Amino acid sequence: MSEFQSKGSAFAQKIFDDVRAMSKDVQGVTRQAFSAKETEVLDYLTSIGQSLSLEIVHDKAGNVWMTLPGKDRSLPAFVSGSHVDSVPQGGNYDGLAGVNAALTVAWWMRETGFVPTRDYTVLMMRGEESSFFGKAYMGSLGMLGKLSARDLALKHRDGTCTLGEAMASCGIKAEDVTGGKPLIDVKKIAAFVELHIEQGPTLDSQKEARAGVVTGIRGNIRHKAVKIIGEAAHSGATDKPYRHDALMAFTDLMQRIDRAWDRWLIQGEDLVYTTGVLKMAPSAAISVIPGEVTFSVDIRSLSADTSERFHALMIKYAKEVEEERGVKVEFDAALYTAPSGVDANLSKVLEDSAVAESIPFIRLASGAGHDSAVLGNNGIPVAMIFVANQLGSHNPHEAMKIEDFMQGTEILWAAVSHYDVH
Amino acid sequence: MSEFQSKGSAFAQKIFDDVRAMSKDVQGVTRQAFSAKETEVLDYLTSIGQSLSLEIVHDKAGNVWMTLPGKDRSLPAFVSGSHVDSVPQGGNYDGLAGVNAALTVAWWMRETGFVPTRDYTVLMMRGEESSFFGKAYMGSLGMLGKLSARDLALKHRDGTCTLGEAMASCGIKAEDVTGGKPLIDVKKIAAFVELHIEQGPTLDSQKEARAGVVTGIRGNIRHKAVKIIGEAAHSGATDKPYRHDALMAFTDLMQRIDRAWDRWLIQGEDLVYTTGVLKMAPSAAISVIPGEVTFSVDIRSLSADTSERFHALMIKYAKEVEEERGVKVEFDAALYTAPSGVDANLSKVLEDSAVAESIPFIRLASGAGHDSAVLGNNGIPVAMIFVANQLGSHNPHEAMKIEDFMQGTEILWAAVSHYDVH
Repeated sequence: MSEFQSKGSAFAQKIFDDVRAMSKDVQGVTRQAFSAKETEVLDYLTSIGQSLSLEIVHDKAGNVWMTLPGKDRSLPAFVSGSHVDSVPQGGNYDGLAGVNAALTVAWWMRETGFVPTRDYTVLMMRGEESSFFGKAYMGSLGMLGKLSARDLALKHRDGTCTLGEAMASCGIKAEDVTGGKPLIDVKKIAAFVELHIEQGPTLDSQKEARAGVVTGIRGNIRHKAVKIIGEAAHSGATDKPYRHDALMAFTDLMQRIDRAWDRWLIQGEDLVYTTGVLKMAPSAAISVIPGEVTFSVDIRSLSADTSERFHALMIKYAKEVEEERGVKVEFDAALYTAPSGVDANLSKVLEDSAVAESIPFIRLASGAGHDSAVLGNNGIPVAMIFVANQLGSHNPHEAMKIEDFMQGTEILWAAVSHYDVH
Repeated sequence: MSEFQSKGSAFAQKIFDDVRAMSKDVQGVTRQAFSAKETEVLDYLTSIGQSLSLEIVHDKAGNVWMTLPGKDRSLPAFVSGSHVDSVPQGGNYDGLAGVNAALTVAWWMRETGFVPTRDYTVLMMRGEESSFFGKAYMGSLGMLGKLSARDLALKHRDGTCTLGEAMASCGIKAEDVTGGKPLIDVKKIAAFVELHIEQGPTLDSQKEARAGVVTGIRGNIRHKAVKIIGEAAHSGATDKPYRHDALMAFTDLMQRIDRAWDRWLIQGEDLVYTTGVLKMAPSAAISVIPGEVTFSVDIRSLSADTSERFHALMIKYAKEVEEERGVKVEFDAALYTAPSGVDANLSKVLEDSAVAESIPFIRLASGAGHDSAVLGNNGIPVAMIFVANQLGSHNPHEAMKIEDFMQGTEILWAAVSHYDVH
């Protein structure tokens, strides 16, 4: 193990432990986007940046930029980071690992007195997860001025507030994040590298490699709340021909989708489909035929064309179910996130760095979406490092080994230190 | 229209209006079993009995018996009534119509100075609906001492209290309702007639008949909370072969059931199947593959054998889904309610009474379960009158026409007044 890995792991471990303690929720952690808890975690991480004498800047979308000045401050910066929020009762590493890796590299520069040629900036973003408001990448879209009024009107899944209201409670103005103009100077970013846990089983099933360099990021088409309206009726007194059971119609639609998905995979398409949330009407009871259900849709693919065709197929199936079961299916507005490529040169820097440090790695696609995709689609050269993790992600059992994390982080450190050399 | 119908409708309408106002909840009404609201409604209805100088007795299961003394008090009584509770945001007539009909007959006796040969008793029962605790007929089972300790341990669907705790809050002792001995003298009941809205479309689609005499009552097999345990994981990063999606497994199970149900109907079986409640884990989110769902089961048939065979088939399908999808299906204890016959002689009295008053009626089976089934299965001669209603039942839109109600109520009045004559 390198000196970087052996010394850095204690620094990084303390940050993981502190933030976990701060955001513990039953078995997992909850760091809701644009909540007081997210702010508390950001403040804690900012205090670490301060202790490393980084220059702290808050952008108008609530994200925090912490810069270690380089020798030539006129050069665009090398930026690394990720998001600090989490899904409800999720794992501690989704997002936080990338922030921690970027911080650990800054700490190591200070430990070793290394001064980079250009500025090195740790970027800590808010609100990447869509779980609470049905919208993802709010922090990165916000800093590019690319949120819409419709986005800000999205309701919290508990109905308690809108996204706009939650952002306002963090001091973020609607006119800034929806203005269409970046709140940051995109040209001052030479490179953005995001380290992230893989959130899937591929790396963890490798014999040697514990880290990966990402080749592309799946985009998605989502619905927050598709509604099926049937007719509530007595469960004993209403015979099958008279029923318009909204839940049974939902199961019918899902099974059509499930069978089509199998066929598409056999045909070689890249595709995942998930309904993660299903809600019944408040009147739901054992002895009542469900009159209404509402559910979420998440279609993802490396190909925008695949996502769009599968989305169209779902709408066709919904029409069939409407006719066959006497129900109505109402789709809310679809939310689109384009698939994203990564910057070939910057990815090559990561691969060369891994080779230089003798860290085994593989190339792999990202199934999950990331802020990197948003930045990459807006003219910033981006690349991603994946770290093996266990038990998936977006669940309280998500796990990661600190030694795997340090291998991935060393690729980042090597990339930063080699960036202006080779 | 008879004098009884024209004069009685104002008396009955006021009771419907008063109780609706008392228990209004959004569009419908909520009169939760063994709640303060149920007690309030019972007290109001008891005050009407008092104004008619009926003798009021509360049994130890919380039900109220209001007797108009007959000429020969040694004879067993003619009892009529129903339940006062409702499903959450249900309709006003399910249960209340039967209580109101019985009260209207008592009022008419006082109006006309009619004294029956035997005691005539209005029975107002608590807690018939299973919506809140997953157990039906709690008032009638309680008065027979036939609730179990397991029943009393059932949790409110919001997790706030147990059935036993709710009953205790109404002054009902666990040892009384679980003692295995009736808290009433079953031999002192000559007849129990329950008027009820049909809760289905059959009567309302008749050209002439607005009332029906019931030929039998469907029994049921229920589960309050069957659990499917899969594996929560990231919706984008987890490809189909790695998924153990609890919600998708549920939809698969439901569609197997739905197709089998179609086949059974073609084979001539009497059968309805409903999953009325489905709950996701608290960690459910758009971007999380569901790791757990919990749902209710309600299988009903006029044949206990049909219900049992379909229940067994469901368990077989659950095993197939477990194997094919790598999930676990955990069935909680099944709750059984036997189908019930009605008393042939008492039903004949109802039919003869309808004929005598020239009220058109049909004979029909009851799809819904009723307290009458419990009383009938425990040695009391029971019969039921159905009244046409609109828009089903167990939903806020449930409707009933007062003139249809008065036709059904006149059958009851005629039966009471003819009972010791013909």
